[in-house]
Amino acid sequence: MALGIGVGLDRLLSSGDNGEHWGESVVAEGQGVPFYEPHQAGISTPQPEHLEFAAIDVASDSVDDLRSLLQEWTVAAATLMNGEPYEPTAAERASAPADPGEAIGAGPARLTITIGFGPSLFEAAGKERFNLASSWPKSHVPLPPFRGDSLESGRSGGDLCVQACAEDPQVAFHAIHVLLRIAEGVAALRWSQQGFGRTSSTSREQPTPRNLMGFKDGTNNVRAEDKREMDEHVWVQPSDGPAWMEGGTYIVVRRIQMLLDVWDATSLEGQEGAVGREKVSGAPLGQEREYDPVDLEAKKDGELAIPVDAHIRLASPDTNGGQRILRRGFSYTEPSLAGSGQLDAGLFFISFQRDPQRQFVPIQRRLAANDALSRHLLHTGSGIFACPPGPQPGGFIGEGLFA
Amino acid sequence: MALGIGVGLDRLLSSGDNGEHWGESVVAEGQGVPFYEPHQAGISTPQPEHLEFAAIDVASDSVDDLRSLLQEWTVAAATLMNGEPYEPTAAERASAPADPGEAIGAGPARLTITIGFGPSLFEAAGKERFNLASSWPKSHVPLPPFRGDSLESGRSGGDLCVQACAEDPQVAFHAIHVLLRIAEGVAALRWSQQGFGRTSSTSREQPTPRNLMGFKDGTNNVRAEDKREMDEHVWVQPSDGPAWMEGGTYIVVRRIQMLLDVWDATSLEGQEGAVGREKVSGAPLGQEREYDPVDLEAKKDGELAIPVDAHIRLASPDTNGGQRILRRGFSYTEPSLAGSGQLDAGLFFISFQRDPQRQFVPIQRRLAANDALSRHLLHTGSGIFACPPGPQPGGFIGEGLFA
Repeated sequence: MALGIGVGLDRLLSSGDNGEHWGESVVAEGQGVPFYEPHQAGISTPQPEHLEFAAIDVASDSVDDLRSLLQEWTVAAATLMNGEPYEPTAAERASAPADPGEAIGAGPARLTITIGFGPSLFEAAGKERFNLASSWPKSHVPLPPFRGDSLESGRSGGDLCVQACAEDPQVAFHAIHVLLRIAEGVAALRWSQQGFGRTSSTSREQPTPRNLMGFKDGTNNVRAEDKREMDEHVWVQPSDGPAWMEGGTYIVVRRIQMLLDVWDATSLEGQEGAVGREKVSGAPLGQEREYDPVDLEAKKDGELAIPVDAHIRLASPDTNGGQRILRRGFSYTEPSLAGSGQLDAGLFFISFQRDPQRQFVPIQRRLAANDALSRHLLHTGSGIFACPPGPQPGGFIGEGLFA
Repeated sequence: MALGIGVGLDRLLSSGDNGEHWGESVVAEGQGVPFYEPHQAGISTPQPEHLEFAAIDVASDSVDDLRSLLQEWTVAAATLMNGEPYEPTAAERASAPADPGEAIGAGPARLTITIGFGPSLFEAAGKERFNLASSWPKSHVPLPPFRGDSLESGRSGGDLCVQACAEDPQVAFHAIHVLLRIAEGVAALRWSQQGFGRTSSTSREQPTPRNLMGFKDGTNNVRAEDKREMDEHVWVQPSDGPAWMEGGTYIVVRRIQMLLDVWDATSLEGQEGAVGREKVSGAPLGQEREYDPVDLEAKKDGELAIPVDAHIRLASPDTNGGQRILRRGFSYTEPSLAGSGQLDAGLFFISFQRDPQRQFVPIQRRLAANDALSRHLLHTGSGIFACPPGPQPGGFIGEGLFA
């Protein structure tokens, strides 16, 4: 790695400085998310407003380099989530600063850093990598193609992922920036995605936000407070294996462009029928209030209130053998598609699940085939990563991988 | 236009509803910026955290279409800045809703909408457009090329621009989304840019933020409170002409990619020398505190404290015949450059000035030629637009253009 964490970050970490602040920096109290927990932060943590996501490829073929990278990232992640300020040393005046500095004074801003491992970290072109074959969860394979996929390789895959979420987009960007600097010479950015405005509620304390189609999104999400549901649908259990993933989860990301020109020209009735909910209130069709239970059999004027191809019908646990996923996505908007005259905007879908093969894959297969909403969406990016449990103090994220 | 404003927006406007809210929507009090003012909002307004900027080309060659578009935009802008909620009508159930709805419940969020006219609105390919030759300010021509420019046509130019700024990125996006829908059939998006984290302070009430190079940016900006400075450097005066631009200003935008890999590998001394300020404190080199006056003659160890090629020396009013500009830019980050392994991030520079030919152009020429910081920057997009004064109640933005 180009930087020793000796220059800056670990000094701050070892000082245990949580209260004293350097220079003009002011760390807002109560804005830090704990790092050393049984589960990695950024999964059941209440979702903040901003995302910077990076998929990273490892160039080195040395398992020592990979282990060192994860060790340094762990120290850096703990430091960054604590909002610890940058402090140049005399040595840094003549060398490049360890921390590029754009988050000085911003505080922790509820930053979370979540790290995952793609299938390509274990095997590429049929060859084992990093001597990790015995650690490879057998179900952790690339997602299958889905009908209508329009995936771009420059927005898909990756050996590693880092999800940085924060209330301040500059803090999220900074976290990815620092981790990429630490990786220099060992691993490099494959693709990145920024997002804003959570598109799911992951806690009962948060109101349901709207996506860029104007609908409330995530009303029936798994909530972090529902420990039983989290264990059943999100956290890898001892019976699942492998042992190093116990208490971890699998993250699926999909960059989903919304075809807003056609959607915007669709009648309100047509939009509500495609979603299966009222636009303004968020109530399931046939009901009155957002949190009224979804009744897939309810009739209106002799017809099903929720059409057969409505999104909430096809995504419902009742239609999917009880399977649920924890959604935690963000909206995105980017420079318009050249010459299209259209906004490039949509959803950077993120879900966490215990077993993507039993959860995300069949649900998405059903949606891609039949969902009325899917006709207004284009999946342009995709990734799947195994997120191990949180690290022990003194340990590092993914330590069990090397056991 | 595809939508009559009769469907939704003007109904809300004419109802004068500022306090009653529909359904679950809650409009935060005190979050609205006044619309009918002598100057357009979004220029001297304290800068919020988020930007959505659109450059738009007019396809129609009818001056009536252009006038109608500006009239409808004016009504919509007033409505949106008021944070007025979406309210579907019975008619809209069977037709497409006027408002796509993603900002329902978000409130005004200090939204400002600023509209400008590019040189290409007046003349294209040597031919007059819209019978506007007599209204064309003679100095309102495209920016000249600058050394090192790497402009992309898909990120540059435009007949019209709309700058939407807000504390909530979804509200800024929504404003552009609605205005583009209104324009359908008459004008279409040419390019767009989102930004976050203001990179200038435009009011004495705001602390100076940091850009993505980690430096405080905008310490010596023109401040909205300095009325004399605003009149001297920002607002078009009666002596400047043409009459329809009195109280208006010219906006220059530049998409400036930061070459962060090389910058990050530069020593702290090197970075501070290129900028001319200390990184953490923001103090001018040779001084102690951020707001200490810049002393271009100060010496340290017998050398100029602020190097001859430092950014703040070359951008200083002292180096530029007293000329100043009002900067109001935002950071941006986008999906990484394919295959580069690098973050695509930088500054969407925005400045407002009374006469770009006397202000932005000579300053940027000097920076492009000699500025040490410029070697770490790549200008990839560019635009210039004339922003007329604020509209009178009952009138519309740019009305004077058609007098």
